[in-house]
Amino acid sequence: MAGDETAHATEPRVAIVGGGIVGAILTLGLLRQNISVRVYERAGGFRELGAGMAFTAAARRCMTLMDPAIAEALRRCGAVSVSDDDSDDDYLRWIDGYNQHRADDPSYQKPLAQIGGNGFQGCRRDQFLEELSKNIPDGVIEFRKHLESIEEREDGRLVLRFVDGTTAESDAVIGCDGIKSRVRQHLMGRDHAASHPQYTHKVAYRGLVPMDRAVAVLGEWKAHNFHHHVGPGAHLTHYPVANGAALNVTVFLSDPGRWPDHTAMVAAGSRDEVVAALRGWHPVVLGLVRLLPHELVKWALFDLAEFPVPRYNAGRVCIAGDAAHASSPHHGAGACLGVEDALCLSTLLGQVRETVQVAAAGTTTTGRALEAAFEAFDAVRRTRTQWLVNSSRRACDLYHQPEWADPTRWIKAETCFEELRDRSYKIWHFDAGDMVRQTVAEYSRRLEASSCEGQGHVDGKGSHSSIVADLDGKAGMPLRGKH
Amino acid sequence: MAGDETAHATEPRVAIVGGGIVGAILTLGLLRQNISVRVYERAGGFRELGAGMAFTAAARRCMTLMDPAIAEALRRCGAVSVSDDDSDDDYLRWIDGYNQHRADDPSYQKPLAQIGGNGFQGCRRDQFLEELSKNIPDGVIEFRKHLESIEEREDGRLVLRFVDGTTAESDAVIGCDGIKSRVRQHLMGRDHAASHPQYTHKVAYRGLVPMDRAVAVLGEWKAHNFHHHVGPGAHLTHYPVANGAALNVTVFLSDPGRWPDHTAMVAAGSRDEVVAALRGWHPVVLGLVRLLPHELVKWALFDLAEFPVPRYNAGRVCIAGDAAHASSPHHGAGACLGVEDALCLSTLLGQVRETVQVAAAGTTTTGRALEAAFEAFDAVRRTRTQWLVNSSRRACDLYHQPEWADPTRWIKAETCFEELRDRSYKIWHFDAGDMVRQTVAEYSRRLEASSCEGQGHVDGKGSHSSIVADLDGKAGMPLRGKH
Repeated sequence: MAGDETAHATEPRVAIVGGGIVGAILTLGLLRQNISVRVYERAGGFRELGAGMAFTAAARRCMTLMDPAIAEALRRCGAVSVSDDDSDDDYLRWIDGYNQHRADDPSYQKPLAQIGGNGFQGCRRDQFLEELSKNIPDGVIEFRKHLESIEEREDGRLVLRFVDGTTAESDAVIGCDGIKSRVRQHLMGRDHAASHPQYTHKVAYRGLVPMDRAVAVLGEWKAHNFHHHVGPGAHLTHYPVANGAALNVTVFLSDPGRWPDHTAMVAAGSRDEVVAALRGWHPVVLGLVRLLPHELVKWALFDLAEFPVPRYNAGRVCIAGDAAHASSPHHGAGACLGVEDALCLSTLLGQVRETVQVAAAGTTTTGRALEAAFEAFDAVRRTRTQWLVNSSRRACDLYHQPEWADPTRWIKAETCFEELRDRSYKIWHFDAGDMVRQTVAEYSRRLEASSCEGQGHVDGKGSHSSIVADLDGKAGMPLRGKH
Repeated sequence: MAGDETAHATEPRVAIVGGGIVGAILTLGLLRQNISVRVYERAGGFRELGAGMAFTAAARRCMTLMDPAIAEALRRCGAVSVSDDDSDDDYLRWIDGYNQHRADDPSYQKPLAQIGGNGFQGCRRDQFLEELSKNIPDGVIEFRKHLESIEEREDGRLVLRFVDGTTAESDAVIGCDGIKSRVRQHLMGRDHAASHPQYTHKVAYRGLVPMDRAVAVLGEWKAHNFHHHVGPGAHLTHYPVANGAALNVTVFLSDPGRWPDHTAMVAAGSRDEVVAALRGWHPVVLGLVRLLPHELVKWALFDLAEFPVPRYNAGRVCIAGDAAHASSPHHGAGACLGVEDALCLSTLLGQVRETVQVAAAGTTTTGRALEAAFEAFDAVRRTRTQWLVNSSRRACDLYHQPEWADPTRWIKAETCFEELRDRSYKIWHFDAGDMVRQTVAEYSRRLEASSCEGQGHVDGKGSHSSIVADLDGKAGMPLRGKH
C-alpha cells in the first residue's frame, strides 16, 4: 500500500489517457457517477478515422446503463443495422467464397452457416465520437497532451508528465490509449513483450464499392446483407453502408511472413495483389474484388494475443479497451468489449466515491479504495477480454481452413460453425447486469480484505450506486442525480 | 421413399448392431417404449473391457429419462465421484506438470485452473455393462453375430446378413458398433474416408499405481482428486479408483508420425519410453511415472475428426455413439454423448410407435415414420456430437501447448482455460429435456413434410410419449406403462 495511510478519504480525481471511443464513453460514464475526470489526448482533436465500427445489442445495453445519452449519441450519428433491408434480420452469414458447386449456375455460392441475434448496429467512428463529444463539458478534455511518464508522489497521488513538458496530477490513471498504449508500457516496462502489439499474420484491404455495381455482381439480396465469403487462407466480408448507397468490402489475407515495420501498421497496397492472392477463387468474389479501387490501403492486423498483459492494474493505474486487450477484428467486437470495460470502471468508481463519502471520518483512504477498484476491474474483465483476443484469431483460422480447397474435407471444414456460433453467442449474449453485480461484489471483497478495520465498506446490497439501482427494474429510465 | 407406399403401418421392429454400453442403454430405452428390439453382437459375450469410464450428471439424467433402471445399474456397479474424498468436490484441476516454480519446494506444482460442476461418476465398463444386461430379457441379444451387410427388400424391410451365413430381418437398423462400425461402412461405402477411423497423433499409456505409493509422490490431497498435469506436447491425468485403493494414471503423448497398423490400435509399450518422452518434466510427474509397471500398453487414439460422417442416417438405417462420432477421450465425454443419442432415439422410436398406432387406418407407413425419425436424429444430434470430436482434439492441443516450456509465454498459455471452461460447460450443462422437446418437434416436422395427406401425424404437444410426459414434472417417478 502506497501513500499516506493516515490521510482521510477525499473524492477521487481520475485521469483518462486517450480520447478515442472507449475513452469518451468512459468519460461520460464517470461524469454520470459525479466523478471528477480529466482526459488527456495526444492528438490535436478527436483522433478516430472515418472507418466503420459496430455495436451489439449487449454493448448498447452497457451504454444505456452508464448514461442513456451514450446510446442516444449512437442513434444520432446514424447507426443502422448491418443488414439494411430488414432491421429484424441480423444474421451474419458465411458462404463458400472459393468453390463452385453448380455447373449450371456460376453465381451460386453454397450457404455454410447463418448465426443471428447480435443486434449489430454500424456507424462511422468519427461521427460517433463527434456525437459523444457533444455531451462532454468544455475543459474535461485536453488535446495535444502526449503522455511521457507517470510518477507516484509520496502521498500516493500520480503525476502525469507530458512530452510538451507540462504535468498534471490525479488520484488515478486509466489508460484508454489504444493498441500502442503508453500507459501499458508504464505498467509493464517498455522492454516487456506485452508492451508491444504483435503481428497476427493477417492483412486487410478495405474499400467501398457503389451499390449498383455491387448488386450486379452479388445480386440484390446478398449485396444488402452481411456476408463472409470464406476459403483457404483468406476471406472477404461485406456489408452495406451510407444508407445502402455503398458496399463496404474488406478482404483478409494470410501472410506467413514478418511485417517489416511495427511502427507503421498500414502500407500501400493494390487491387492487383488482392486479385493475385485470390487466384482460383469463386468468380463472384473475384468480380467483387475487381470493383475495388486500383490503389488500396493494406492494414496489418496487430493484437496482444502472443504476449497478453499479465495484469490490467497496478496500484492506482489501470488500462482498458484496446490498451489492455487489442484484438484482431474477426468478431467485430473489440469496441464492444471496451464498452463493457467502461461500464465496469464506471460502476467501480461510483463505488469508490460512495466508499470515501461514507469513510470521511474513517480510515479508508481514497488510494486504498482506488486500488481495490482496479484490482476488481482486473478480476472481472481480464479473462473475458483475453479470451476475445484468442477467439478472434481462432475465428479467422477457421474461416481460412485449408480444408475448403479439398472437396474430401468440406464436411470437416463445415463442422467449424458450431464452435463459431458458441463463440459469437458468448460475445453477443453478454449480461451487463450480471457483470455490474459481480463487479460490486469483487470490489467489496477486495476493499474488505485491504481495510484494517473493515470501515468504509459499502457492500453491493446496500449500495446507492445509480447503475446498481438501475438494474433493479429501472433500466432505461432517467438516472437519479447525485444523492 | 423406399418400400410399399400403400402398406398400412405396423409396429416397428428395430435391430441394434453392437452390444456395448450405448447399445445396451439404447436397448433398455427402446424396451421401455415398448419397441420390439433385437441386438446383434459380434463377440461371444459382452465386449467391454475393464477400463474406466465416467458419466456426467447430465448423462445420468438422460439415463433416468429413458429408464430409471439404467441409472440404477450405474449405481449398482459402484459408480463413484471421480474425486473420492469429498463427493461434493467435482472439480477437474489443471496444474503445471512441466515447470518448477519454487526453488524452496520441489513438490510444488502451480495450479492453473479448476472447473467444477460436471458431476462425473466413474465406473468400470465391464461392470456397468454387466449390471445393464441384468435388465435385458433373455433372447433380446444374440451373440456371435458379426454383421457382413445390410440389404433392403422390395417391401422396404431390411435384411442383416452375418458372417456366419445367417440372416435377420428388421424394419430399422441402428449401428452402435463402435469406432470401426460396419453399419457406418454400409452407409458410406467401404472406400469412403469416413468409413475408417483416423489417427489423432496422440498415444495413451494407462496403468494403476497403489494409492500409498502415489500418495508418497503426490501428497494425500492431490492423489485423491482428479488432476491434469499439463506441459509441452504431453499431459498426465490421474484419479482414484477401486474405492481409493489405487490411482488410475494415464499419460498422453504427442506423436507426429504415422501409426503403423490401423487394424490394431494398441501396441506394446514401456515405462522407459514414457520416461524418455517426459525428459525435463516436473519431478513429481516423473516420480509418478516411475511407479507405473515396466511394461505398458500403448493405445493409439483414433477418432472421426478428419473425415466426419456427412449424415448419420440413410433410409431406415442410422448410426449412434462411437459408430457415428468416435472421439478422442480428452473431454471424458464420448460415452455421455452416446447416452444422449440413445435418449434421442428412444424418444423418436416411441414417437414412431405412436404414429403407426394412430395411423393404423391411415396412409403413413412404418417405413415413412422410421425415415422421418432417423432424419430427425441426424438433425438433432450431428452438430453437437461432431463438435465434441473437434473439441476433444482442441482440448488436447491446448493442454499440449509448446508455450508451457517458455516462461515468456506462460501468460499466453494460461489464457486457454476460459475456452476450456466454455467447452466443458457445453458438455456438462446439457439440457436433456430441451433435446427431447426439440426431437419431437423435428420428427413432427419431417413426418408432416413427407406425409402426402398429413395423416398419422402426432405433434409434440399432444404426444403421449412417456419420456415427453416425464418432462412435464414427473421426472424420476416411475414411468407409465403402455397406454
